Amino acid sequence: MAAKSSKDIRNESRFMVLRTVFAQHTVTRAQISAETALSPATVTTLVGELVEEGVLREAGQVSSQGGRPTTLFQANPGRGALLAVDVAETYVRVDLFDVSLARLDQERMELAPGAQTIETVAEHIRGCVETLLHRHPELEGDVLGAGISLPGQVDPVRGVDVFAPNWDWHEVPLCAALEEAVPVPVRVDNPLMALATGELWFGAGRRFRQFVSVNLGTGVGAGIIVDGQLLRGRGNSAGEWGHTTLIWNGRTCSCGRSGCVEAYVGVEGIRATLAEIAPEHELLEVPHHRDFIERLMRAEVAGDAAAQRALLRTGDYLAAGIGNLVNLLNPEHVSVLGWITRYAGAELHDRVRERIAQECLPGPSSTLSIEFTEADGEGVSLGMAVLALEAFLERVGLPSPSSALTPAPPASGGGSAPGWAVPHGGLAARRR
Amino acid sequence: MAAKSSKDIRNESRFMVLRTVFAQHTVTRAQISAETALSPATVTTLVGELVEEGVLREAGQVSSQGGRPTTLFQANPGRGALLAVDVAETYVRVDLFDVSLARLDQERMELAPGAQTIETVAEHIRGCVETLLHRHPELEGDVLGAGISLPGQVDPVRGVDVFAPNWDWHEVPLCAALEEAVPVPVRVDNPLMALATGELWFGAGRRFRQFVSVNLGTGVGAGIIVDGQLLRGRGNSAGEWGHTTLIWNGRTCSCGRSGCVEAYVGVEGIRATLAEIAPEHELLEVPHHRDFIERLMRAEVAGDAAAQRALLRTGDYLAAGIGNLVNLLNPEHVSVLGWITRYAGAELHDRVRERIAQECLPGPSSTLSIEFTEADGEGVSLGMAVLALEAFLERVGLPSPSSALTPAPPASGGGSAPGWAVPHGGLAARRR
Repeated sequence: MAAKSSKDIRNESRFMVLRTVFAQHTVTRAQISAETALSPATVTTLVGELVEEGVLREAGQVSSQGGRPTTLFQANPGRGALLAVDVAETYVRVDLFDVSLARLDQERMELAPGAQTIETVAEHIRGCVETLLHRHPELEGDVLGAGISLPGQVDPVRGVDVFAPNWDWHEVPLCAALEEAVPVPVRVDNPLMALATGELWFGAGRRFRQFVSVNLGTGVGAGIIVDGQLLRGRGNSAGEWGHTTLIWNGRTCSCGRSGCVEAYVGVEGIRATLAEIAPEHELLEVPHHRDFIERLMRAEVAGDAAAQRALLRTGDYLAAGIGNLVNLLNPEHVSVLGWITRYAGAELHDRVRERIAQECLPGPSSTLSIEFTEADGEGVSLGMAVLALEAFLERVGLPSPSSALTPAPPASGGGSAPGWAVPHGGLAARRR
Repeated sequence: MAAKSSKDIRNESRFMVLRTVFAQHTVTRAQISAETALSPATVTTLVGELVEEGVLREAGQVSSQGGRPTTLFQANPGRGALLAVDVAETYVRVDLFDVSLARLDQERMELAPGAQTIETVAEHIRGCVETLLHRHPELEGDVLGAGISLPGQVDPVRGVDVFAPNWDWHEVPLCAALEEAVPVPVRVDNPLMALATGELWFGAGRRFRQFVSVNLGTGVGAGIIVDGQLLRGRGNSAGEWGHTTLIWNGRTCSCGRSGCVEAYVGVEGIRATLAEIAPEHELLEVPHHRDFIERLMRAEVAGDAAAQRALLRTGDYLAAGIGNLVNLLNPEHVSVLGWITRYAGAELHDRVRERIAQECLPGPSSTLSIEFTEADGEGVSLGMAVLALEAFLERVGLPSPSSALTPAPPASGGGSAPGWAVPHGGLAARRR
């Protein structure tokens, strides 16, 4: 039940300084102070430490208001490189970033459909990394770390994948396998946390301290930002909005529950909606998720009534799901991201805009903004590069966490149902 | 986008010190330090300030481990009294507490059924307060503040009730009306925040930093605790779990949406479930909520099959609703509170226990504990006494907030639908 320490505060302040520099590219200490509300003395100290470590560098001078020249600072791309790995269900992609978070290069390999072992995944990552480093001999010895996003419920502290239903992974030890494949320290996480971290550093996080980033993809989920920090929950699985109820006892979801948001708003959910409207629709046979969504949008534009109805209905489901987040969390803002927005963002945006006021209580709705961002599909790797940078900074003694990682305890027993514990002797013992 | 300051930290630390003293009644500084992980020097300073203000007092000495005597501290009941007001839909109740949060006395008046004006409510409160103060002439001049809980979406910063659907209140100015009725500074809030504050000070808050307190009553809702602080959201309406979806397009809810959790788990929801099972059931005619629940439980025990099915189904709905909270927030713990637990707690507990593992993802479920607490119906007034104490401490310069209150901005325009704002020129402008 420990209180926050002044060290925690200092780390949070360092995060705000770094985020300001990265988002604005070139800034003076006075601008950082104005943006973060940190005192000039604090900013001077924090910038000084980061310059000393080589993460920031001086970038010339400008005249200040009083006419005296003042120093500009920027991230230092020469400090080294970061690997960002996005392991999806059908591909492995590795991006190379410099420390200023500029993307230098990219390599990608397809994964065969079906279940994967961690060894296969690690082998694919190794292949991409070797190709990239071969193309960039100048970086030898200068790769500072790797951030690897894997599907499922990833525990970054223990370095395991707790649960990845589509691959039947349970408690798979990731870091052990991956650190053989990648010659640098590895930080693992899941795509939801990666996307939300990117949004916190480069998107809505610059304007809001309480917001939700909704990810629309094959699966769907949310990143919850409270008081400027990403909420991870007890075991890094906060944000599983895709596995909250939209229709109790409704469609079977991949997680084993019924009626989850993902079963209506995820790609297979959209397909199921189309099948309910037009059981014989030709697009139902398109196996690949992006192809399916892209062709559904083309059909919608071409006047296909079933495609139009399926999209409207998806917008209705999405509005209800977002309304749930708004009513429960009363955020300042909702960002809608994820690859589906590249194809269907405008249509879903319009429908959600029509419906959202009816789905929210008047109080939370009156102060809310919602923004759809057409994703470029690179949000996960950007977020993993940020997390790899955070891990590197922590190793050199300059933590700047966008979220607090707490070690999860071992699974607790104490009851007949998994996960049920009644600490003080059960119900009757706590009559007050 | 301001960072936390060392003053914020000091206030949070003061909260932890106070909570430890109130929960343990009589403690040494060393015990406070052990419980809070604050340094002995910090504890000495914070306790010293609170003693100087008269909120804490010395309470004798004990021998420490080294044999030297060490001072015990406790809350100082002589410092003054607090009024805690619970305005429900059918009654107004005022409790008198001393500063050690011991309940001294209580007065209650019924409210006539139907819509109320703020003037009627204020008149009832005035009546109860005058009776209480007449019975306690020794407290003249010593009442430090009042905490008043009102139904609906209360904004404590502006002192208004944003939305109370059952009374058709919109933007009702509470503090202005209530400060005439009560001769001391007034702090307003809603019952959900009051109950969660009580749980944070005296219940699960002592053991967990990430938890949810679920309130089962006429209406239902949740208090969300993140990092040891109550989440209030942008406009103090976080936690409206009762107005998240259980069945999309399902039963009409009092809030105007369809299929909300409250429409299945709140009292009228339970009644609707019974009506679906047995449309002619005699209990459907019992108007008063507590009578209805009490008689439903008696019928269940007596073997009434419809009552039994209605309770089982309510347990299923409750398990799904709690599963949603667990999957979205991945808390360490869920406390189930509220007056319904006094009557139906054991039965709902058993059914939730049977069902919860199926409603939660494996990760969050493996580290979760759930506890039902049979409520004594006094949780709201206890929580409001705590909030009145917090407000008093803030006025004397010793803030100890269990949550951060941020002023809500005025309702924003900027779009055709209420509450829709697209800050940067809309969708296309943010392609990244």
